[in-house]
Amino acid sequence: MKAFLDDNFLLSNRTAEKLYHDIAEELPIIDYHNHLSPGDIANDRQFENLTKAWLEDDHYKWRAMRANGIAEEYITGSCSDNKKFNKWAETVPYTLRNPLYHWTHLELKRYFGIEQLLNSNTAESIYLKAGEMLQDHVYSCRNLLRSKRVELLCTTDDPTDDLHYHQAIAKSDCEIHVLPTFRPDKAINLQSTDYIQELSDVTNTQIDTVDDLLAALRLRINYFHENGCRLADISFEQLPTLTSAVNASNTFLKWIKGKNIDVKDAENLQAFLLFEVCKIYHELGWTQQFHLGVVRNTNTLAFQLLGPDTGFDTISDASQGQSLLSFLDHLESTDQLAKTILYNLNPRDNYLFATAVGNFQKDVPGKIQYGAAWWYLDQKDGIRDHLDILSNIGLLSRFIGMLTDSRSFLSFSRHEYFRRILCDLIGRDVENGELPSDQMVLQKLITDICYQNTKDYFNF
Amino acid sequence: MKAFLDDNFLLSNRTAEKLYHDIAEELPIIDYHNHLSPGDIANDRQFENLTKAWLEDDHYKWRAMRANGIAEEYITGSCSDNKKFNKWAETVPYTLRNPLYHWTHLELKRYFGIEQLLNSNTAESIYLKAGEMLQDHVYSCRNLLRSKRVELLCTTDDPTDDLHYHQAIAKSDCEIHVLPTFRPDKAINLQSTDYIQELSDVTNTQIDTVDDLLAALRLRINYFHENGCRLADISFEQLPTLTSAVNASNTFLKWIKGKNIDVKDAENLQAFLLFEVCKIYHELGWTQQFHLGVVRNTNTLAFQLLGPDTGFDTISDASQGQSLLSFLDHLESTDQLAKTILYNLNPRDNYLFATAVGNFQKDVPGKIQYGAAWWYLDQKDGIRDHLDILSNIGLLSRFIGMLTDSRSFLSFSRHEYFRRILCDLIGRDVENGELPSDQMVLQKLITDICYQNTKDYFNF
Amino acid sequence: MKAFLDDNFLLSNRTAEKLYHDIAEELPIIDYHNHLSPGDIANDRQFENLTKAWLEDDHYKWRAMRANGIAEEYITGSCSDNKKFNKWAETVPYTLRNPLYHWTHLELKRYFGIEQLLNSNTAESIYLKAGEMLQDHVYSCRNLLRSKRVELLCTTDDPTDDLHYHQAIAKSDCEIHVLPTFRPDKAINLQSTDYIQELSDVTNTQIDTVDDLLAALRLRINYFHENGCRLADISFEQLPTLTSAVNASNTFLKWIKGKNIDVKDAENLQAFLLFEVCKIYHELGWTQQFHLGVVRNTNTLAFQLLGPDTGFDTISDASQGQSLLSFLDHLESTDQLAKTILYNLNPRDNYLFATAVGNFQKDVPGKIQYGAAWWYLDQKDGIRDHLDILSNIGLLSRFIGMLTDSRSFLSFSRHEYFRRILCDLIGRDVENGELPSDQMVLQKLITDICYQNTKDYFNF
Repeated sequence: MKAFLDDNFLLSNRTAEKLYHDIAEELPIIDYHNHLSPGDIANDRQFENLTKAWLEDDHYKWRAMRANGIAEEYITGSCSDNKKFNKWAETVPYTLRNPLYHWTHLELKRYFGIEQLLNSNTAESIYLKAGEMLQDHVYSCRNLLRSKRVELLCTTDDPTDDLHYHQAIAKSDCEIHVLPTFRPDKAINLQSTDYIQELSDVTNTQIDTVDDLLAALRLRINYFHENGCRLADISFEQLPTLTSAVNASNTFLKWIKGKNIDVKDAENLQAFLLFEVCKIYHELGWTQQFHLGVVRNTNTLAFQLLGPDTGFDTISDASQGQSLLSFLDHLESTDQLAKTILYNLNPRDNYLFATAVGNFQKDVPGKIQYGAAWWYLDQKDGIRDHLDILSNIGLLSRFIGMLTDSRSFLSFSRHEYFRRILCDLIGRDVENGELPSDQMVLQKLITDICYQNTKDYFNF
Repeated sequence: MKAFLDDNFLLSNRTAEKLYHDIAEELPIIDYHNHLSPGDIANDRQFENLTKAWLEDDHYKWRAMRANGIAEEYITGSCSDNKKFNKWAETVPYTLRNPLYHWTHLELKRYFGIEQLLNSNTAESIYLKAGEMLQDHVYSCRNLLRSKRVELLCTTDDPTDDLHYHQAIAKSDCEIHVLPTFRPDKAINLQSTDYIQELSDVTNTQIDTVDDLLAALRLRINYFHENGCRLADISFEQLPTLTSAVNASNTFLKWIKGKNIDVKDAENLQAFLLFEVCKIYHELGWTQQFHLGVVRNTNTLAFQLLGPDTGFDTISDASQGQSLLSFLDHLESTDQLAKTILYNLNPRDNYLFATAVGNFQKDVPGKIQYGAAWWYLDQKDGIRDHLDILSNIGLLSRFIGMLTDSRSFLSFSRHEYFRRILCDLIGRDVENGELPSDQMVLQKLITDICYQNTKDYFNF
Repeated sequence: MKAFLDDNFLLSNRTAEKLYHDIAEELPIIDYHNHLSPGDIANDRQFENLTKAWLEDDHYKWRAMRANGIAEEYITGSCSDNKKFNKWAETVPYTLRNPLYHWTHLELKRYFGIEQLLNSNTAESIYLKAGEMLQDHVYSCRNLLRSKRVELLCTTDDPTDDLHYHQAIAKSDCEIHVLPTFRPDKAINLQSTDYIQELSDVTNTQIDTVDDLLAALRLRINYFHENGCRLADISFEQLPTLTSAVNASNTFLKWIKGKNIDVKDAENLQAFLLFEVCKIYHELGWTQQFHLGVVRNTNTLAFQLLGPDTGFDTISDASQGQSLLSFLDHLESTDQLAKTILYNLNPRDNYLFATAVGNFQKDVPGKIQYGAAWWYLDQKDGIRDHLDILSNIGLLSRFIGMLTDSRSFLSFSRHEYFRRILCDLIGRDVENGELPSDQMVLQKLITDICYQNTKDYFNF
């Protein structure tokens, strides 16, 4: 019987242990997609206490607390940090078998050296102990990143962002590369004309037509490029379908004047805008990411009370195939398909995505990536399924690996989690005689997936 | 090598063995959803022979026999019980790896102490031996339930039912609680106006308008409530969507007069009716169940010959997401969402359901339940997948556990099946170092899922 | 630690080893669905080199090379065979965990006795060694088949084919039965009126009406029947739905004159044609196969350069349920449903297909087959999932087993692959006490699935 969370956690065989401890464990991290605050890095923020570090922004934990019957007051409400922490601690024993149980104790152990299990009895002492440690500068944001050997990370940023935090970091003595990611959801999703006004202001241009909007976006893309950005991202429940470029111009003219537009016309306009920015990404040698298959703000009452991104988003079962294939085909047909990473949220579409990717590979090794297990799938089974399906259908060896997708500076243990799972799979196959037991081959495979492929793939 | 179906059947590790034998095995059963006959319990029926007990009503076995090429005459036809049993016995060896193979031999062993494998050679002796035993009063329906420590069970009942069997059982010396479940499919699915007439008769009310129908349903819900009912159920291929309450009234007026109504109008009316009864459930503190994703009567020829519920229903791939989310959101938006259990039939939607549930958790631990593996999924892989996905996405610790969903008094071995699978998963995780090896924690977890959560969740 | 690809490859337990080596390994092969060239068999072709044998026609390998960044020139281009082989060899180490890695080395070992791993370093020596061996007559197509104990195989043939190769083989001293399969996709999919002209020519009939077309198809079906054919096949993204037989006639009249027809009308006509040929299959006691869920030619640029079947087809997420059920029901309703094998490409529909099949079982054991894991699913996980789901839902014991679906004479190792996986699953269940350890029962199970069921099922 193995002890909980011991040195060989998730490693079920001797080869896996060696692969992890001898190769994967000490590799640096390139975290190419997350939602960390560049301000926190620029200011090298320190967190007052564990509630600030853990519960300020983590809708995984919030959902678990709600499922445990905890009142909203203790979750996103005005309760004291101490009370909130106690309610989280009370919930932790009910998260057995949920990834939160592993992440929580992995983070306590790795960052704070705390091996106690968190529950109502241990809540106070753990809160105090970790709280004290957080006062030390070794727990500053930058030092937390350094402790995990983070070499480079990409935040997620709005086109209107002036990137002054990124610039400040670049100018500072911080050796960690912190690059922005261009994420134009608000510009393309037609959520509000106010946002277009912001874009107009920040670019000093007048935006009356769809061409004006594209010109403004190009200015911002160039600005991001100058600031080191080589990566774009966007999220849709389903990729939009283009029916008419002409119609897109007209729709924009109506919409920008505040008139009602038809749902189909809106989708056409979104598709048009998306294609145009994707062509610019291709031109600049960027990589584009698509996070597909999420339904947002499903609980109207909660949305009215708490706003977006508070734990009420979920997995969509909208059909992905046709729109995804026609999207990729459209860009490829004029040879304007940039390097692309596709993430799906509904695991029933894993095979669909893994095969679709293979229809558009060309010239660059692993050009179109079937992206790492995302959001709700970012757990042991989800990661294994992703790795297995990618292996069965494509080239695992060309996979650019894990990312945290997180808002938390403590979440880099997820790279450890991923690396252990990867080493376990590979080790098991080797011991079963399904992979050759060749040290060179295995070392290259693990190093490539955990670090080297990422380094080679992007034009950072 | 383990012997087939030995004491540690399905238990692959030492911890699992201890969890099952020391904790799970002897816990009482609360079977909160099944299709047992209340008449059989009221009359404390005894079965003449194994064909009556096993084959009278079990479309799982019928389907297996058809797939084995057995003529319908021996399945639902007029053949003698003896001949039918022989054809079933002939089929059993062809069910290797199907859950029927396990259930059959588990039931023979547990209820009759018969350890022989059933096949053509053993058919006669097993039929005779079990047949003789069934004559003994220890094989009466109530005693079969007692032998499995069933404390409470919920049958499935039509709103027009006068519940006299439930009343008779309650008045008898039977210590097992047998409660009705309110299942208004016929009232809400608009299958026939005749049914509305029945409802009119049983309530002594005139039903001309949709409000009349709702008033009648409320009378029946109150009547069920007085008779101990705290649970409702309904089944749809896909939850209906409400477009207009006004339109629902008008549609009903047309439909009740026998006029044709549009498919979209019918769906709207169904949604309207459903929302209204769901609000009453909420008012009374009931729990509502939804069994979603089944296509019924897919084989027209067989339906004409044999009628409904004869083994020709199957898994639907209708889209579930949008209708499910908008249904839950509609009730939650006015704070009228009762405790809810959601069962899906297509396993490709497991993750969808498991996450959707989490968007509407509030105040009550595990308020919205991702229901146990159902129907075709009620087998080892289906149960494991359900438990794993629930674990990954929600709080397994708050799960209210297994139910038989069966028409058979011999099917309570399925609780044993479930408990063994659960203990095996937990034991394996403990031995792998993925769960702490803490006896108190594990005892609580197993007890809660197998018994205590169910007891606490419902207002029985 | 097991050596890579040793004698007990994929066999994880002692029982599995015995089942495979004592029973499965030496059973003959009936490969009832593949795309082998009848001409190559008639001419008893020998391959010049490994490129010809392996890379001429294998879009699995082509896709892997593209994903590895290899230029098209080396894949389908005009490069020398030697250069192409080197690029493939360079790619092989990047296919670790992909089935290609196993198949490649299994084929090298089994056919050529080569145990080296293929990579850039070994490319030249392997190319030379295998190339020399291929010159020997023991590597002729027929001898390759004989070396795997192939008793009978079914190719895939167009209705216009004169089957002269099949006739030549039948008249030759070749003891292997090589039967055609009737695959009328071009006649039914309405791809071109030119094809109807070909059909007109080959049947010496005038085709002006839909009845003329059906009469011509009946002539060809009879011709195929005379030449030993007992099997049909067809592929759709989604089965077409019949709305009106009358409309079908009219649609055909328009279409055959080159007029534009509506998408819905085209689908109706396809459904009409399909039903009519299916009724003929039933009349003649044939078996019909349906390969469902593929999207073809998704990459327009590649299609223009390379044409169809070059590695740009992929998994569809079109809804399958309704069309599949109504198709089977339509034929069953007049008792004209032939023996049927259904293959799905999107694994999210595995359970759907496995249960749908069970709604139409009648009289013949395993009449409606849930077909073997196909195309992208033809790997270890895909095969296991298929076997497990078939087991959970239907009768594994009645399964007619594996087929290569391949264009390559070297791909018969896939039967070995399948048999090892099957034996491993069964052996594991036996050792776990989930199946009885009864030698007779197990021997029958393995023999039936690997050989005997196939022999009994078809009317060859």
